[in-house]
Amino acid sequence: MLKRCLIVVCLGASGLVAAAEPVDLDMVSRIRQEAFHNSQVMATFSHLTEDIGARLTNSPQMAEANAWTRGRFKEWGLANVHDEAFDDFGRGWEFSSATVEMLDGRTQPLHALPKAWTPGTDGPVEGELVQVNIKKLADIETWRGKLGGKILLLGEAREYKRATASDSHRHDATSLEGLQEFTIPKSSANERSKRVKEYEERLELAKAVNTLFAEEGALAAISISSWDNGIIRVAGGGSRKAGEPVGIPELAMIAEHFNPLARALENKQTVKLRVNVAARFTDETNQPGYNTLAEIPGSGRKAAEIVMLGAHLDSWHTGTGAADNAAGVAVMMEAMRILKAVGARPDRTIRVALWSGEEQGLIGSQDYVSRHFAAYPEPAEPAQKALPGSLRNPTGPLQKKRDYDRFSVYFNMDNGSGRFRGIYAQENLAAVPIFEAWLAPFHDVGATTVATRNTGSTDHIPFDRVGLPGFQFIQDRLDYFTNVHHSHLDTWDHVEPEDLKQAAAIVASFAYHAAMREERMPRKPVLERD
Amino acid sequence: MLKRCLIVVCLGASGLVAAAEPVDLDMVSRIRQEAFHNSQVMATFSHLTEDIGARLTNSPQMAEANAWTRGRFKEWGLANVHDEAFDDFGRGWEFSSATVEMLDGRTQPLHALPKAWTPGTDGPVEGELVQVNIKKLADIETWRGKLGGKILLLGEAREYKRATASDSHRHDATSLEGLQEFTIPKSSANERSKRVKEYEERLELAKAVNTLFAEEGALAAISISSWDNGIIRVAGGGSRKAGEPVGIPELAMIAEHFNPLARALENKQTVKLRVNVAARFTDETNQPGYNTLAEIPGSGRKAAEIVMLGAHLDSWHTGTGAADNAAGVAVMMEAMRILKAVGARPDRTIRVALWSGEEQGLIGSQDYVSRHFAAYPEPAEPAQKALPGSLRNPTGPLQKKRDYDRFSVYFNMDNGSGRFRGIYAQENLAAVPIFEAWLAPFHDVGATTVATRNTGSTDHIPFDRVGLPGFQFIQDRLDYFTNVHHSHLDTWDHVEPEDLKQAAAIVASFAYHAAMREERMPRKPVLERD
Repeated sequence: MLKRCLIVVCLGASGLVAAAEPVDLDMVSRIRQEAFHNSQVMATFSHLTEDIGARLTNSPQMAEANAWTRGRFKEWGLANVHDEAFDDFGRGWEFSSATVEMLDGRTQPLHALPKAWTPGTDGPVEGELVQVNIKKLADIETWRGKLGGKILLLGEAREYKRATASDSHRHDATSLEGLQEFTIPKSSANERSKRVKEYEERLELAKAVNTLFAEEGALAAISISSWDNGIIRVAGGGSRKAGEPVGIPELAMIAEHFNPLARALENKQTVKLRVNVAARFTDETNQPGYNTLAEIPGSGRKAAEIVMLGAHLDSWHTGTGAADNAAGVAVMMEAMRILKAVGARPDRTIRVALWSGEEQGLIGSQDYVSRHFAAYPEPAEPAQKALPGSLRNPTGPLQKKRDYDRFSVYFNMDNGSGRFRGIYAQENLAAVPIFEAWLAPFHDVGATTVATRNTGSTDHIPFDRVGLPGFQFIQDRLDYFTNVHHSHLDTWDHVEPEDLKQAAAIVASFAYHAAMREERMPRKPVLERD
Repeated sequence: MLKRCLIVVCLGASGLVAAAEPVDLDMVSRIRQEAFHNSQVMATFSHLTEDIGARLTNSPQMAEANAWTRGRFKEWGLANVHDEAFDDFGRGWEFSSATVEMLDGRTQPLHALPKAWTPGTDGPVEGELVQVNIKKLADIETWRGKLGGKILLLGEAREYKRATASDSHRHDATSLEGLQEFTIPKSSANERSKRVKEYEERLELAKAVNTLFAEEGALAAISISSWDNGIIRVAGGGSRKAGEPVGIPELAMIAEHFNPLARALENKQTVKLRVNVAARFTDETNQPGYNTLAEIPGSGRKAAEIVMLGAHLDSWHTGTGAADNAAGVAVMMEAMRILKAVGARPDRTIRVALWSGEEQGLIGSQDYVSRHFAAYPEPAEPAQKALPGSLRNPTGPLQKKRDYDRFSVYFNMDNGSGRFRGIYAQENLAAVPIFEAWLAPFHDVGATTVATRNTGSTDHIPFDRVGLPGFQFIQDRLDYFTNVHHSHLDTWDHVEPEDLKQAAAIVASFAYHAAMREERMPRKPVLERD
């Protein structure tokens, strides 16, 4: 078959010049046709958000999502469709209702939703509200004997933060140009030990506080949502680990309802609340979490080599995990579907991973990378073992697994649902001209920029940490960090269908070209961890 | 006493030149000192919003607000403190809780709040959701026999409207300059008869729909909040009038929760909801509404002449009526307090009015103006009588009361809580240079602009309609029309204390200068109504 190819000699915004990188324009056309005119990305996205709903790791909905995505992959003819367990994530949890009402005189409903992995109230409880502000361990004892039968208001009123810019943002030429600047990191000497200390103190305080509240027999605790404007932004509390203290029922309340309670208490008024949270742990014991995997097998001599795509299937519990991250999952699934639909026969194997436990610290992807590609040795000391990987002391040289050298590249999507505007090269300069070539056929749909800078905080990081090429795309932010991130508004309506179609086309094309390229993706040096 | 006076010869942005208008800078200094350094405006505002709360006209909270404001006026030494009734506003109504939950499979709380003057559910009700879209009378019959025991989803999913500007806005030089343009109104021939027709059709359809739903025995109805981003924007439904059909329990739901329900029904899914609304009418029969009035009496030969200040004390029911309009009330009350505190002895009587029934159509202020100042004759035909005043046919010449000629000017505040940036002169060109002079000592706190244009929709309009000078100030919009107007977020935290202090100083000064001025405020011609 004759292939019309674009040979790109790059002199992009990065200024980097490299040898010609071939682009299969026939294949890109077929991918675009399927992605733009025969899309199923919204069907996938809609089922995840509106039929399954929120997908807290190890909740029944998460299991449903694992099963449903496996089913779709099988229908599309993907190979090696399976779930892969990672150890002892903890217990599942779910809630069905949460109400808080002010009693006495002026009754009114107060908007609040529970923190994941905190207990329910087992029916309505009523109690007087007490403002509790514990900032250090020494504060604990001052509260003993005072909290029984009370409802606790945690912290103080927070001043309203008035917006100074639109709550929705798309890149323009200026903001994209700004991404070309790379900031040389400041020395991090002593930085880790400081962060370890803070982490350990925070953890110790949280445990002591949970224990105090439970021992005292306080009925429930209420904290302020971290955003204004009626948005309930709430993650986890208590503990997902069987055997650990889960504390008392705890909810995050909208600032507009929390602040008046705080002001009333500061004015020495008596406030009585009724709280009713229907929430439950769905397991007695710790359970493994599950990533869902599927492949388009490669063929020929490079078939054992691996190109990976991924996004996290789990979400927080109050919205429907739409931008975070049904959008990413739907795009990655759609990219695989497109590749099958256009009859792609890649040289390397293209594997998709739908991660779990991302919201609790990239747990599913970290475990997967450790098992399949490489890991630093586990620390011996229990104190070190208790720390997240990024805070541990160096434990010795990287231990590579068989597939380390067979791995080419991983592409992730988890910066909300906004349109792709390019890709972060994660300081891998040799990747820059390759990405510039691959992006060229998508300039007309707004994806133009390769930035050398790093981006963090999601599932490409476990790859990056062990020296494997792992990347995230530059995306329009939309209202990700103003309305939806970890909030009850992370729902279907805040996502743009056309953005997901565009992203799926780009991912499919990137995966295909990575799988067909003569060489695996160049790697940057593994940093010895300081 | 020697008074240092500013004689302003105006050549402001308006370009209008007039004779020197005296400004008593000694008095302005005293007013500013009291307003800026000894303010009580936030204490007043806080009591109204956080101790009393929402103040729906004729609710128990509204009565509490009438009583509390009378008490404050008396403490401050104002005269003639009293409530003045207006006829048969209707029944009071209040609610204390509202929950909507999805049953079957994925349970989750859905955020919704009741429309005022709709009945409660008398405990939880459960039923299947049916999408009902009635656009004209002819649609009614197609639904008969189908709605018994059902919960009704009114209307269709609405596409998310992405923000293109900051949700909070303050004027700058450019936007203030833009206010100088006056738009000549288009001919309104046939405009009123068209509006009458639309009004009557809308009313007839609403009554028929309420009757259908009640006759069918539908359990509850849910409509979509008129704003996105989790904001519940909701006014009234049912009827406040004793004897009129109140329909069935009706709630407004956040768009992010309404739209998935609509999509599920459009996809032929079965949805079951549980709805529980605790709401009640607080009267059996129609009751009068009450405006609260108080005065600083004038002295000397102008004592019978009247300068008025006002704002509406009533609010909608889901927030705490903060920007709409505890802010205005607190500012007007504070202006009166300041005038007493600085020992002002005005020539004319300064009267403050805290209106009620504003949200249902400026009812309290309209009634007051009709009784005290002037009114057009009541129409004879019942059909005309049933229309709001602004839609009626001309009924003959204005009937003036005794105080019509004693009246000087009315100042209102009801454009949210934002800082004063000037005043709308309401096409009264002779007022422009007067206002420019009075504003001069407040340029340093951002109030600079006199615009000839009209502003409408609140309690200065009944004055304006009968040819009396009634004005509203130009205010920074803040997030009035993005977050708080008629929404559950109209609460304390969205208001800026400094803005209220500034407004109170300006109102006090304007009232004082209006009361001391040689002549009453010039009037524009009364327009014969077309």
